[in-house]
Amino acid sequence: MAAEASPRPHSDLERDVLEAFWAYERALKANDVDALDEAFSAGESALRSDGTTVTVGASEIARMRRVRAVIPRRAVTSVHVVPSSADGALVMASLRSPQGMRGTQTQLWERRDDRWRVVAAHVTSTQAPFDRSVWRVLGAPLVAGASEGECAGLRVAVKDLFAVAGMTIGAGIPERAALAPRESAHAWAVDRLLAAGADVTGIAQTDQFAYGLAGQNGRFGTPLNVAQPDRVPGGSTSGGATAVALGWADLALGTDTAGSLRVPAAYQRLWGIRTTHGMVPRDGVLPLAPSFDAVGALARDVDTLQRAIRELNPSASRQAPGGWMTVPALTRLADDDARSLVNQIARHTGARECEWGIDLDAAFTAFRTVQAAEAWHAHGAWITDHPGVLSDDVAERFALASTVADADAHRAYAVIDEVRATLRDQLGDRILVLPTTSTQPPPLDASDEEMNAHRARTLRLNCIASLAGLPAVALPVGHDGTSVCLVGPAGSDLALLEVAGDLHASFSGQGES
Amino acid sequence: MAAEASPRPHSDLERDVLEAFWAYERALKANDVDALDEAFSAGESALRSDGTTVTVGASEIARMRRVRAVIPRRAVTSVHVVPSSADGALVMASLRSPQGMRGTQTQLWERRDDRWRVVAAHVTSTQAPFDRSVWRVLGAPLVAGASEGECAGLRVAVKDLFAVAGMTIGAGIPERAALAPRESAHAWAVDRLLAAGADVTGIAQTDQFAYGLAGQNGRFGTPLNVAQPDRVPGGSTSGGATAVALGWADLALGTDTAGSLRVPAAYQRLWGIRTTHGMVPRDGVLPLAPSFDAVGALARDVDTLQRAIRELNPSASRQAPGGWMTVPALTRLADDDARSLVNQIARHTGARECEWGIDLDAAFTAFRTVQAAEAWHAHGAWITDHPGVLSDDVAERFALASTVADADAHRAYAVIDEVRATLRDQLGDRILVLPTTSTQPPPLDASDEEMNAHRARTLRLNCIASLAGLPAVALPVGHDGTSVCLVGPAGSDLALLEVAGDLHASFSGQGES
Repeated sequence: MAAEASPRPHSDLERDVLEAFWAYERALKANDVDALDEAFSAGESALRSDGTTVTVGASEIARMRRVRAVIPRRAVTSVHVVPSSADGALVMASLRSPQGMRGTQTQLWERRDDRWRVVAAHVTSTQAPFDRSVWRVLGAPLVAGASEGECAGLRVAVKDLFAVAGMTIGAGIPERAALAPRESAHAWAVDRLLAAGADVTGIAQTDQFAYGLAGQNGRFGTPLNVAQPDRVPGGSTSGGATAVALGWADLALGTDTAGSLRVPAAYQRLWGIRTTHGMVPRDGVLPLAPSFDAVGALARDVDTLQRAIRELNPSASRQAPGGWMTVPALTRLADDDARSLVNQIARHTGARECEWGIDLDAAFTAFRTVQAAEAWHAHGAWITDHPGVLSDDVAERFALASTVADADAHRAYAVIDEVRATLRDQLGDRILVLPTTSTQPPPLDASDEEMNAHRARTLRLNCIASLAGLPAVALPVGHDGTSVCLVGPAGSDLALLEVAGDLHASFSGQGES
Repeated sequence: MAAEASPRPHSDLERDVLEAFWAYERALKANDVDALDEAFSAGESALRSDGTTVTVGASEIARMRRVRAVIPRRAVTSVHVVPSSADGALVMASLRSPQGMRGTQTQLWERRDDRWRVVAAHVTSTQAPFDRSVWRVLGAPLVAGASEGECAGLRVAVKDLFAVAGMTIGAGIPERAALAPRESAHAWAVDRLLAAGADVTGIAQTDQFAYGLAGQNGRFGTPLNVAQPDRVPGGSTSGGATAVALGWADLALGTDTAGSLRVPAAYQRLWGIRTTHGMVPRDGVLPLAPSFDAVGALARDVDTLQRAIRELNPSASRQAPGGWMTVPALTRLADDDARSLVNQIARHTGARECEWGIDLDAAFTAFRTVQAAEAWHAHGAWITDHPGVLSDDVAERFALASTVADADAHRAYAVIDEVRATLRDQLGDRILVLPTTSTQPPPLDASDEEMNAHRARTLRLNCIASLAGLPAVALPVGHDGTSVCLVGPAGSDLALLEVAGDLHASFSGQGES
């Protein structure tokens, strides 16, 4: 935890200060204010900040502790020690609230007369900030759900494409949020979750019009990738993914046209599901490309997703699919790590390698053509009426979309019909295992070329389920949380989640394997 | 800034580390990442936390700095130093964003080979948290205002008694927030501010049904008193007051029945105005006691209040009132500090001492009787239908309110008519100066007796403007920000603010005095 000149020269000091640190944590848990006073320096130079206000002097600090005492429900998830002298050390601890919110506590400890005392402390509480890159609107809650039900207690981040009664749909664009009409009713999916007892915590940010996979939003800002802070968070269900990863929400309700749930799940090591196309009503959801748009969700664990999908798609089948398959042409689109993971899973499940008779490039081109044509059909008029409001990358995408000729779109639809039939036929009642994304998420400062290359390969992987209209579950596997994707037969949403849960357990060493 | 054994024994060390500290701040402002890298320890034990994520090791920290670099627009408002060794010190700095949001930065500095370097840093950013005690709903913004106007750029915290289209009115009660109908239009005052270019940032918490002056809310929590963290924040415009004090909003739109704007202004050293009764339309505002309810606002400075009141009460007069008065029977209700301040102002303004022919006890009793009768009339049915949802103190107040006999209320109305006429007559075209509250705010852990005693005396002071239906401005005066209240003739709202601004300038040594 601290080593600079020679290897761990301060280990005695570290051990001693950590002993004092943990005693302090126990006193905090018990709200033993006398012990806390005792552990704090009695000096008038003692400092304490709650992040907002600095309190100076032991007596003031003791008084604050008494009047504002709240027993902090938090766990210490990691501790770092930096020695400051032969009798002193700084201890920095990562905190986690029961709901998963993160904080940090820094203390400077000093030993005098063989007693350790805190001479300065700074806590960033595990209270969630209002982060405009994550939320457009946040409430306490924004909409309360039914008092009981299968989803009672779930805090839902609703992607800003779903109608929330009384609010506008902003779709990641401030002007749209300001100017769109207020919705008179909740989207079907929102209503369903509320009826099952979930609360809508807030409206979460998205790539503009959901036309992106990186999660970067030039207007509201780019949410943090919690798992890999120097990389893009993934989108378009971007704000919801970060809210879930940080514990600010339990479930992100989102949409997936070409990976908008699977990609942020992969980038942030979450669970994500795109439901069978057309099975979850899209009433009250702003479309991007209706031929592919599907409702779905993200969560930190499979149980939460199962609770949500039982409500959103109650007629989905729970019957286990009939076997496993991989497609080398798809597996090869990913880097070594993901490839080897898919191969490991294939061995574990006895998956059959199948080379299917599909021209992936032609299918992908048809997909992008129809997606673009439908996106322009849905939003072209508004975009034309509101010049200058889109971020450059999204504006470019729509500019290209505006040029799709009707004849090209018609041809693309024909290709898609055929590809869909072939895909469904080849899959049968099996599960297809493939990498969720081609690589780890690109760094935030990746060049446009890198970003586009990554996007093209990842879209090729994701468009399979979109083209076939099939359900897909992205799950983190193994010790590093690399994501794999399972695509199942139409209507197998719940069965897929079940299987994914078992697979995860096996590969985390918790199952029979 | 640091002294324990002997007086300031470490002053050389302090001076040296502060020099390094300020050089670092300059590098931060210039986003000079090379200088920042250089100033950070190169060791692999270097630590940096943004409050959410701890980054370990100089190379990781340097990488994060590059990919997530945002030039922090912040000022250091105070610095504290705690020596950690002969060659080390902890520096804790209070930060303030341009909008007034607070943060803290803690750094452990170490000197080696005559160079100071940071070995550990922890920043709580000046990003506002979502604090349920302050906000019920918060947006980015919640409702955008017109693109230009007199109030352009103002971020408004709307008390949860005003209709915001699409939202419910919660009045400080979660069940009401969940069950009330969604409002179909904005309250008149909200609409007016939006039309003038202000944004509605969020819906701010209140004492339940605004029936309180302490700002304590047992359901959503008690907002911080920013000026005096161990004391109650003041209410009932409680969340808005704290939001403004913390810089999370620029203006709190609120109501004042018996001091609900003046009291939080005083407790948190803000500016507050209660407008002339009946001049600002109350359409879309949940009533407490319509005979006294008045719309008004809180801000950190008088200019902001003036911008808002010019919109909310455009027909208010700006003509200077005709002189000043004090009423010793009122001044005496406050403690020494406030009394001496009022007397100072009286000398400064040449105010006349007037003993008026009003039985303050009788007037106060009549006020409370009518307030109670009207409060029960407004909310009794809902409260009866929803047992157990109010906090104890508010429940008690309503229980008492439910017992007011019609005959007593009628007698009280007669007293009030007479008192109002007398007060207006005695005031004439002058300004009455009186203490805003009887004492400093009670501590958070004050006993019920202390709280009630304070409340009774403060109500007696505040009920004067309420009984007379006159405008009242509370302003912080002098170096310690003790609040005085100016009550002016009907319709003098803007003139009062003008006069208050001049008075403040004089007593801050900025005017001619």
